[in-house]
Amino acid sequence: MDTDTRVEPISFETHPSRYKHWKLAVDGAVGRLTMAVDENAPLRPGYQLKLNSYDLGVDIELRDAVERLRFEHPEVRCVVVTGALDRVFCAGANIQMLASSSHGFKVNFCKFTNETRIGIEDASSGSGQKYLAALNGTCAGGGYELAMACDEIVLIDDGNSAVSLPETPLLAVLPGTGGLTRLVDKRKVRRDLADVFCTTAEGVKGKRAVEWGLVDDVVPRSRFEDAVSTRARELAASSPGRADEGIELPALDKTIDGQGIGYGFVRLDIDRQGRVATLTVKGPPDGLPADAHGIRALGAGWWPLQAFRELDDALLHLRVNEDSIGLVLLRTEGELDRIVAVDEVLERLEDDWLVREVRLMMARVLRRLDLTAKSLFALIEPGSCYGGTLLEVALAADRSYMLDDPDREVVVAVTALNAGAYPMSHGLSRLAARFLGDPGRAERLAAEPRRYDPAQALEAGLVTVVADDIDYEDEVRVAVEERGSLSPDALTGMEANLRFPGVENCDSKIFGRLTAWQNWIFQRPNAVGERGALSLYGKPERPAFDWRRT
Amino acid sequence: MDTDTRVEPISFETHPSRYKHWKLAVDGAVGRLTMAVDENAPLRPGYQLKLNSYDLGVDIELRDAVERLRFEHPEVRCVVVTGALDRVFCAGANIQMLASSSHGFKVNFCKFTNETRIGIEDASSGSGQKYLAALNGTCAGGGYELAMACDEIVLIDDGNSAVSLPETPLLAVLPGTGGLTRLVDKRKVRRDLADVFCTTAEGVKGKRAVEWGLVDDVVPRSRFEDAVSTRARELAASSPGRADEGIELPALDKTIDGQGIGYGFVRLDIDRQGRVATLTVKGPPDGLPADAHGIRALGAGWWPLQAFRELDDALLHLRVNEDSIGLVLLRTEGELDRIVAVDEVLERLEDDWLVREVRLMMARVLRRLDLTAKSLFALIEPGSCYGGTLLEVALAADRSYMLDDPDREVVVAVTALNAGAYPMSHGLSRLAARFLGDPGRAERLAAEPRRYDPAQALEAGLVTVVADDIDYEDEVRVAVEERGSLSPDALTGMEANLRFPGVENCDSKIFGRLTAWQNWIFQRPNAVGERGALSLYGKPERPAFDWRRT
Repeated sequence: MDTDTRVEPISFETHPSRYKHWKLAVDGAVGRLTMAVDENAPLRPGYQLKLNSYDLGVDIELRDAVERLRFEHPEVRCVVVTGALDRVFCAGANIQMLASSSHGFKVNFCKFTNETRIGIEDASSGSGQKYLAALNGTCAGGGYELAMACDEIVLIDDGNSAVSLPETPLLAVLPGTGGLTRLVDKRKVRRDLADVFCTTAEGVKGKRAVEWGLVDDVVPRSRFEDAVSTRARELAASSPGRADEGIELPALDKTIDGQGIGYGFVRLDIDRQGRVATLTVKGPPDGLPADAHGIRALGAGWWPLQAFRELDDALLHLRVNEDSIGLVLLRTEGELDRIVAVDEVLERLEDDWLVREVRLMMARVLRRLDLTAKSLFALIEPGSCYGGTLLEVALAADRSYMLDDPDREVVVAVTALNAGAYPMSHGLSRLAARFLGDPGRAERLAAEPRRYDPAQALEAGLVTVVADDIDYEDEVRVAVEERGSLSPDALTGMEANLRFPGVENCDSKIFGRLTAWQNWIFQRPNAVGERGALSLYGKPERPAFDWRRT
Repeated sequence: MDTDTRVEPISFETHPSRYKHWKLAVDGAVGRLTMAVDENAPLRPGYQLKLNSYDLGVDIELRDAVERLRFEHPEVRCVVVTGALDRVFCAGANIQMLASSSHGFKVNFCKFTNETRIGIEDASSGSGQKYLAALNGTCAGGGYELAMACDEIVLIDDGNSAVSLPETPLLAVLPGTGGLTRLVDKRKVRRDLADVFCTTAEGVKGKRAVEWGLVDDVVPRSRFEDAVSTRARELAASSPGRADEGIELPALDKTIDGQGIGYGFVRLDIDRQGRVATLTVKGPPDGLPADAHGIRALGAGWWPLQAFRELDDALLHLRVNEDSIGLVLLRTEGELDRIVAVDEVLERLEDDWLVREVRLMMARVLRRLDLTAKSLFALIEPGSCYGGTLLEVALAADRSYMLDDPDREVVVAVTALNAGAYPMSHGLSRLAARFLGDPGRAERLAAEPRRYDPAQALEAGLVTVVADDIDYEDEVRVAVEERGSLSPDALTGMEANLRFPGVENCDSKIFGRLTAWQNWIFQRPNAVGERGALSLYGKPERPAFDWRRT
């Protein structure tokens, strides 16, 4: 799905009333997400979504459902993920779709599905919505990767249904949606058993699946529904309640034109000629509520929620619909006082379920920013409002440029939320990742919330470049031009390494180690060449491999 | 350098008397390694090694020197790495060599150079030989990556000499020999400054290089030699002495023929038709010394040292000279009692400098095995001796097959050395990585050294498959055939993920995150296509990029 051949942009927004592939039902504390893929409704023509296989369209609905369950149904404390087909839970990502997609689209498809699955784990750890995968039939590849994102997996024991990761033996690619990592890092399956499992196309079923740790339980067909319901109720009961009533997430109010997208608090401007986008976040308006009741009344219109939902949508648009854009200039507009005041509310009301939910969502959006394969330069200019939560946007950037103008005040502000409210994928705060060489410095900065003028910001290491009004414009212009002259691939690889110094965890291993290897394999002739296994899947010819090991 | 076009295999053995590119000198506690690359002595014809640029041949000598300093010169406590040219320390990996190499060769070249640089860090941490990079001129790309592997970096301050990582701006590839990782993870350079540095082809010099943490000191030409000598003596003084006299590392006694290589304790058999190699390690002979004096007298002929030097050589041969081999069957032959006895000596004499040095070397060789991009199956059969140190070989395997033969005893043994004497790249013992899901189990097993018959070994989780004498042969044959039918690329990616569950550190990030991204980029048309930057380097044409971001 290349920019050139695209007819209209892919939208990441949807609503349960429009779902084609999932059924979302809520019964008290238990929600149920049933995969019922309409095989005749692929995102683009050219393939059928047979056997509950999925494409990006299916996953856009899944992500929507997971987000809505958190905001609209806080009463739900366990979500059952199951399938509507007989004998098959899910056949994984659609192979014809993968085989006919461009390299860039495949990579972005996997990134989004990875983020959605990590979002499920975030809903469990952050919102106490436990996920139970109820595998009512065979579960292959991406289907099993989805199951592994859940807290528990129950597999039907019918003598036939198995879990499997057949990517390597059948398609010559990896289970790249977290599969290999979750297998040994999350489920801690013994590595030699994992090796056998991942090279056995037919998978593992029944008692052995439990013994190897691939699933948590197997249950005969006759008792399957009962066992799932019982376990779902137990999981729900194990999770503390949050609230009885949620807030609605309406469609975003946005205007798309050839030059970009305008939202309420976000504006994306596209310069295709220059391959540069400008992403502007407008800070909070005046008169925002400072108490939980007022915030609830505003609901999805509360600035933190609305602005970051809009930012999220803009990032997804940039990634999938604007692949020729290499550099994103990050800007903020507004009054610093107001974002500092919002941060004070976000901090003080941390225990309110909705405020907590919003903070977690903002953290996810900022992680989406970290993981976006575009160069990011933050511009800190008069009228900007890089304070606390919005300072994270500048800290996520590869570089930041701050104008030192004697006539117009330019300041940034650190707040308590910079201490770790919005962790990166690998668990560090952006300040801690920035000051890895000076342990404690991040904590010291966040412990004394204050403002920084250009000289102070430079001294504190919060910005990359400070330039006065004579030099600033040239400095930025040259940097933008230089960035635009470099290989987009080399920049993607460079940024993927420099952005995540320090420790790694399961999430960051998925985006670093696993994804990088999958991207490598997604280019290899043995997978995607004319006679590669992915290209020939479902066709009568056998793949022909170049046997040299790399 | 493909198998098809290879005339004779690359040898990884050399000796200072035959060095073409380095000068090794020892003066008391300070060693000096001077890079003086002979531009007319490339490893294969087709390029010149100008400006102290390097190819695999240069790095084979470096690795030899680092190893010899540890064993032959234990009196050395600081090693100065410097260059023999005027104004240039090292221009990095040779671009013409890279541009004209196959993908597989590039990847293996980088892997070996990475292991050599990690070996320098291992010499510092394990043997107290501190490395001081004395950059007497400009230092680009791989040259700076080598410098970053040293404990400290001193750069000449002559108004011209800079350190740089120009790979991304000039070649559209990554500084893939640990550069990006060491920059932010080891030297902890701030990530935005690292971004500027890595996109600035001319690099950074003088005071700014110190301020950014790129080097530890800059010294004017007039005082450079003095400052380096002084700092080298200080570093040497800061490291406790080990011994006054080392042991010699003679050339390995080996016989190469079309079928493989025979060494004293190791035999490598190649089945090119089946794309399978068999790597057999013979256990210790009878009557080995149990005291430091006796071990010193045997020197390089002591079984642990000789056998693992041979194993290392066989692994390097397999990687670079036998790229069509996809599967290595690992075997041991010998008496279990004897390897258990050797382990007892290795454990008891841990504080002896030579025993310690041998243990560290064995750990490096086992890490080389973990990082070898071939499938590894261990065969545990009558006459094998998988005890302790040699059990690590089976634990490094992707799978192990154990024969349960009522007529012939087959046992494996755990010894105290399995508790962590031979850590993997990411710092875990192989037992701990194996039992990640059962914390403490590895420690419990190692705390009670004992033997395991097939049933016990299976129960303890030490082996993958146990089969009786009726089934064993078929089971192994089918597994070998199946493995041989799978895509070598998918297997490389799969194994790179499954072998390293759990934490990551700087070393494992280099081999996981960084290397995987570099391998991806090493295939991208923007780097290696006809009009890619790597292909066109040094030619008048400008590269033409596909600007789509992935």
